[in-house]
Amino acid sequence: MHDQIHPPHRLLMGPGPINADPRVLRAMSAPLVGQYDPAMTGYMNETMALYREVFRTANEQTFLVDGTSRAGIEAALVSLLEPGDRVLVPVFGRFGHLLAEIAERCAAEVHTIEVPWGEVFAPEQIEAAVREIRPKVVAVVQGDTATTMCQPLADLGDICRRYGALVYCDATASLGGNDFRTDAWGIDVVTAGLQKCLGGPSGTAPITLGPRAVEVIEARRHVEAGIRDDGDVARGRRIASNYFDLAMIMDYWGERRLNHHTEATSALYGARECARLLVAEGLDAAVERHRLHGAAMLAGVQALGLSVFGNLDHKMHNVVAVCIPEGVDGDRARAGMLEDYGIEIGTSFGPLHGKVWRIGTMGYNARTDAVLVTLAVLEQVLRAAGASPTPGAGVGAAREVYADV
Amino acid sequence: MHDQIHPPHRLLMGPGPINADPRVLRAMSAPLVGQYDPAMTGYMNETMALYREVFRTANEQTFLVDGTSRAGIEAALVSLLEPGDRVLVPVFGRFGHLLAEIAERCAAEVHTIEVPWGEVFAPEQIEAAVREIRPKVVAVVQGDTATTMCQPLADLGDICRRYGALVYCDATASLGGNDFRTDAWGIDVVTAGLQKCLGGPSGTAPITLGPRAVEVIEARRHVEAGIRDDGDVARGRRIASNYFDLAMIMDYWGERRLNHHTEATSALYGARECARLLVAEGLDAAVERHRLHGAAMLAGVQALGLSVFGNLDHKMHNVVAVCIPEGVDGDRARAGMLEDYGIEIGTSFGPLHGKVWRIGTMGYNARTDAVLVTLAVLEQVLRAAGASPTPGAGVGAAREVYADV
Repeated sequence: MHDQIHPPHRLLMGPGPINADPRVLRAMSAPLVGQYDPAMTGYMNETMALYREVFRTANEQTFLVDGTSRAGIEAALVSLLEPGDRVLVPVFGRFGHLLAEIAERCAAEVHTIEVPWGEVFAPEQIEAAVREIRPKVVAVVQGDTATTMCQPLADLGDICRRYGALVYCDATASLGGNDFRTDAWGIDVVTAGLQKCLGGPSGTAPITLGPRAVEVIEARRHVEAGIRDDGDVARGRRIASNYFDLAMIMDYWGERRLNHHTEATSALYGARECARLLVAEGLDAAVERHRLHGAAMLAGVQALGLSVFGNLDHKMHNVVAVCIPEGVDGDRARAGMLEDYGIEIGTSFGPLHGKVWRIGTMGYNARTDAVLVTLAVLEQVLRAAGASPTPGAGVGAAREVYADV
Repeated sequence: MHDQIHPPHRLLMGPGPINADPRVLRAMSAPLVGQYDPAMTGYMNETMALYREVFRTANEQTFLVDGTSRAGIEAALVSLLEPGDRVLVPVFGRFGHLLAEIAERCAAEVHTIEVPWGEVFAPEQIEAAVREIRPKVVAVVQGDTATTMCQPLADLGDICRRYGALVYCDATASLGGNDFRTDAWGIDVVTAGLQKCLGGPSGTAPITLGPRAVEVIEARRHVEAGIRDDGDVARGRRIASNYFDLAMIMDYWGERRLNHHTEATSALYGARECARLLVAEGLDAAVERHRLHGAAMLAGVQALGLSVFGNLDHKMHNVVAVCIPEGVDGDRARAGMLEDYGIEIGTSFGPLHGKVWRIGTMGYNARTDAVLVTLAVLEQVLRAAGASPTPGAGVGAAREVYADV
């Protein structure tokens, strides 16, 4: 017989998932209510209002998709894209490839442009591609944890409007820890996840849809047999997924409360708490907190003699890619940190595999003690692996960053 | 500022979701670990083993889809079906229509046969349709909460094998509370949800895939760009969804641990606990418990002078459809139960809308006290609505059922 759940103590300092805020886990353990209970629909409405603040938007259509962040991406793309539609994906890391892959499965005509890992696009590069390709949708990641880069997006809405394209952004890795402005930047659709800067567990994908995107989706409205009424005339080409049909999900979260899936109540409690805590802290304060602890971690690893991957002008606040020193077995060092000290840092994908560790400072773990203990342990692990970091240098450099505040 | 989550006390005696077992909610509040932490992959393997017992199968490919029960249905159908494939859906309630709708979105050629609500199919009816239509897949619900009927399935595997068809079954509403035998009945793919007899919250869809289904899905294997290696040759027609691509999800749960989504850790903790409790009780004992409390509820409502919808020879153990007496305002009575007594019973869909209440006895709420308090309150509510139930008759009849054990 298996025992009850009893995970080992871990400090999760990788690129996410990170330790969920204990208040979020506590919220998730609240008793359930029925899916049309006034208490439940009230919580759904509050969750919509809270995520409008998190996304910095006035979009009515702001709600949750019941699945991981990848589910949010697929819901956005499959609801917007019809077979043959042109999509432009600026790829600057692994998650751009994921957007392209999902768009391909929607049978869209997918065009990509790429910059080397560790760089981001200049607005002119994106504009030139939009002008040439004339896509229906430009799909872009804000922060790609594979490279730690944060793509500037402030000009993207204007560029796309000039050429009649919609902008979709996957802000999973960045939202809450880096500046993001849905309305000010003119982003039509944004999706996220809880397991990075929002401080919750994976499994829920917040989404917001602006009026131009809603219009495209409403033009494909096909209410399910068994719950439609006489006014529900089928329109346009049916969305290729039922579960991810955002027109139906809008009807479930909206006034009509048309049955679709059965909302994942515990997950909603958690998502609501993530947003509640962030809004209480203030979005600007949360971004500043991530900036500060990210700067302390960066200074610390550099003071330990480690070099850092990528263009630091465009690094996300919440993750740093640390080059593994020559002669150090990266996987063995990571395993040692986990087994001996209970601290997890991240490995890497693709061209960076085996070359960098990814160290995160995000969500609940964007905290001074989490940064200092990670640096203290990293020093020990480097020394055990044969490197010669200056004793106390990592912790000292981080402390200086904190002292400057 | 919104307050922390604080739902009202509810006894959820509708067709599901029901109150989650407190032990499941407690498991979900355990701290997170990293997605490739040996503790996490260990819990994933244990979860697979536990659900093999719940599904009564030896299928290696038994795991979780990260979404509600509807996500499990879509994952099964979109991974099995290619455009133009023939599917047969025997429809005996709302959820048969849902299977047909999802299969249509997979661009399959969907054939349905129907019996009136309140009835089930005889094996010969299904066999005749299979012989005529020669489908690739027969997709059927075991228990449809819309009608409370439980479709006999013991002959279905043999029938389908004779004609070369695969059998997919949605056991969301029935699994754990009614006999279900994946291997003995020859069912190729089964999906479920936690929010009915398994005693958990909605948001996770257990699935099991037999060898014949795995072969079909493996023949459509396309490993995602960025994580594939040289041996990963793309095969067959790519599955139309990335999130629901069961070939990739098998690689994530299997030895290769290829990155796909980020497993919803808290949800997995909950799903594991649901199965752990059920396996500790014993599957036969759990089914018997649901039979007993279902019989007590049935006897109770009948003794209150209420008639019951559907063919009682085929009623699921865990839900009963109670005809709303003439002159009683069904929605008002339900609202009164919820507001004054904190007890939720269910409304109905489609042809039964406004005609029956659906009362559940499942999962954590398949308990004597839950049955007796519901009957005691129902008597009060009926009397307040102008009906004349015999005082104490409902509770008395249920007590007699319990006394017979």
